[in-house]
Amino acid sequence: MEDTLISQSPDASMPARNIRRLLVSGPLAGEVIMLLGSSHPSLETREIPQGPLSDEDLQWADAYTGFQLPDGIDRSRIVWVHAMSAGVDTMVPTLRETPRTVLLTRTVGDMGRKIGLYVLTHVLADTHRLADYRWQQANHEWRRLDATCMDGAIATVLGTGAIGARVAEALQNAGFVTCGVNRTGREHPSFSHTAAAADPEAVPRKTTVLVNTLPLTPETKGSIGMTLFGRLQGTLFINVGRGASVVMDELRHALELGHLRRAVLDVLPVEPPSADAWYWEHPQVVLTPHVSAVTDAEEVVHALTSALNDLRAGLEPRDAVDLKRGY
Amino acid sequence: MEDTLISQSPDASMPARNIRRLLVSGPLAGEVIMLLGSSHPSLETREIPQGPLSDEDLQWADAYTGFQLPDGIDRSRIVWVHAMSAGVDTMVPTLRETPRTVLLTRTVGDMGRKIGLYVLTHVLADTHRLADYRWQQANHEWRRLDATCMDGAIATVLGTGAIGARVAEALQNAGFVTCGVNRTGREHPSFSHTAAAADPEAVPRKTTVLVNTLPLTPETKGSIGMTLFGRLQGTLFINVGRGASVVMDELRHALELGHLRRAVLDVLPVEPPSADAWYWEHPQVVLTPHVSAVTDAEEVVHALTSALNDLRAGLEPRDAVDLKRGY
Repeated sequence: MEDTLISQSPDASMPARNIRRLLVSGPLAGEVIMLLGSSHPSLETREIPQGPLSDEDLQWADAYTGFQLPDGIDRSRIVWVHAMSAGVDTMVPTLRETPRTVLLTRTVGDMGRKIGLYVLTHVLADTHRLADYRWQQANHEWRRLDATCMDGAIATVLGTGAIGARVAEALQNAGFVTCGVNRTGREHPSFSHTAAAADPEAVPRKTTVLVNTLPLTPETKGSIGMTLFGRLQGTLFINVGRGASVVMDELRHALELGHLRRAVLDVLPVEPPSADAWYWEHPQVVLTPHVSAVTDAEEVVHALTSALNDLRAGLEPRDAVDLKRGY
Repeated sequence: MEDTLISQSPDASMPARNIRRLLVSGPLAGEVIMLLGSSHPSLETREIPQGPLSDEDLQWADAYTGFQLPDGIDRSRIVWVHAMSAGVDTMVPTLRETPRTVLLTRTVGDMGRKIGLYVLTHVLADTHRLADYRWQQANHEWRRLDATCMDGAIATVLGTGAIGARVAEALQNAGFVTCGVNRTGREHPSFSHTAAAADPEAVPRKTTVLVNTLPLTPETKGSIGMTLFGRLQGTLFINVGRGASVVMDELRHALELGHLRRAVLDVLPVEPPSADAWYWEHPQVVLTPHVSAVTDAEEVVHALTSALNDLRAGLEPRDAVDLKRGY
C-alpha cells in the first residue's frame, strides 16, 4: 500500500487527489468495472457483493462507488465516495459524521433530461385527458372533451438545480411559463421567474402544474403540505424529488378539497409502500415505482471518470456534494 | 350587387381578387364573425344556420367559410372557399367539378404544433409504459419495467407537409431519428432522412413509431395496410391523418401478428364509429375522438384574413389548395 499516495488538498472538500483503488458495489458493479477497465486501466477495481465489506476491502480501497454506503466506512481508508444516484440523502448523514474528510460526488448524468421527459409525459397525459378518453373508449363513447391549455399556463418547479432546470425547459417547450423556487430566489435562465422558498407567495396561486425536484435535507423534509397546497386550486402535483419531502396525509387532504386535481408520485416516503397505503387506490393518484430516472452504467462511469479526472488534475469535481447543505 | 367587383385573375388558382361578402357557417360562425368585424370591417359577413343555403344567400355572397361545403355552391357566385379545417378532402371533389374556378384555402394555423404535441403525448405514454404502471398500481405492485429507449430510435412520418414536419420536430426533440415519406422523396430540414412513397423500402423496418399525417386523396385512400405493416415488428402506429387511408382489417391483422404493438387512432374511416366496431375494445387500440387538433376561431380568422390580404394584394395565398393534387 506504500505506493498509494493520498494527498490531502488544502480545500477540505477535495481530499482525494490520487485515487488508485476503487470498490464497486450494487447491481451495476459488473458493468461499471468492465467500462472502467477500458477507459481507466490504471484504476484498480474490486467488485464487492451485497452485504458488509471485509476489513481487508476497507483497508485496500481509497475510493468507493455504489447506490448505498457500506457499513464500516469510518474504519476504512476511503477518501472519496461516488454515489451512483443523483440523490445522496442516505449517504450525507454518515459522511458528515465521519472523522476524516470524505469527498462525495454524485451521478447527475442524463437524469435531468430523463426526469424532464417523465414530467412532460405525465403533464401531457393529464392535459390531453388520456384517462378520460380511455374511460370513454371503454364505454364506446365518442365525445370531445376540453383540453387543458398549456400556452401561458404556469408550471412551478421546486428546486432550480440540474434536474429542476431540465424539467422547466421541457415544460417551457410545451408552452408553459415556468416559475422556479430555490433557497435564495436567485434567477436562473431556464425559468421565467424565480422566488425564495421562504417567501409564502413563492408558488403562484394560479400554478397549473407543480413539480417537486428538491433533494431530501432536514430543511426539505416534510416541507410540502397544506401550507403550500392550500393556496392552489385544481393543480397537478408531480413528485420526482424525494417522498419524505411531502406530508402524505396533507397531500390526501389537498386532493380531497380540490386544491390538487391529481398527484403523480414517482417517489414515496417509504419504498415500496405498505400494502394498505391509501395512495395505491386513490383515484386521483398515479404511482410509478421510482423510475423517472434510472441510472445506467454508462452514466455512472461518465460521472465517475469525470470526477476522477478533475481530482487528478487538482480541481474540484463539478458534481461534488456540499455535505453541510446536503446536496 | 353592381358594386361587387370580381376580377378573374390570369392565374386560375387565384380568381378572387376583390372579396366583399362572406358567408360564415358552422359552430364557430358567431365567434369568427365577431373577430372579423373588428379586424376587417370592410368585409360584409352573414352567419348561416346549419342546413342548405337559400338562393338569396348563394347570390349575395362571393365567398364562403365553414367546415363543410354547402349544397348548391355550383349555382352560386362564390369564387373563394376558406376551409375552417386543415383537411379538405370532403370539399375537393365538389370544387374540382364546379364549372367556375373556385379558390380553396385552408386553416393550417397552429395545427402542426398541436398535432405534434398529441403525437408526443401518446409516444411518451407508450415509451414510459403508463398503461402497464396503471395496471401494476391497481394490483398494488411496485416493480420497475424497462422503458423503450427513444434515443436514436426511428420515428417514421408519412407526409412531410406543415403537419408532418412539426410532428417530426416534436419527436426529434424527444431523441428520435426521424424519417419522412413523401411523393418525390425530396429532402426536408425537419427530417434526418426522406424517401419516396413509391419506394417499397421507404419505411425502415426498424421503425419504432410510425405516424400517418397524409391528407385523404384517391392515392392515399386505403394505402396503409399489410404491405407496409408487414415489414415492421412491434411498432407503435399513430394515425392523425385521415381514417380512410388505413385498411382497418389489415391494421387488426398487423396488431395480432405483432407487426404493430399498439395503434393510437384519432381518426377513423367513419366517425363516430359504429357501436360494434372491433377497435372500441381491442386491448392494443387507443381511440380519441378526432381531437389531435381542434381548430379555434382565432386560427380560422388568422388564416382567413391572411388569405384575404394576399388576394387583395394580387398574391396567391400561402395555404391555397391545389385542387388537382387534392391538398
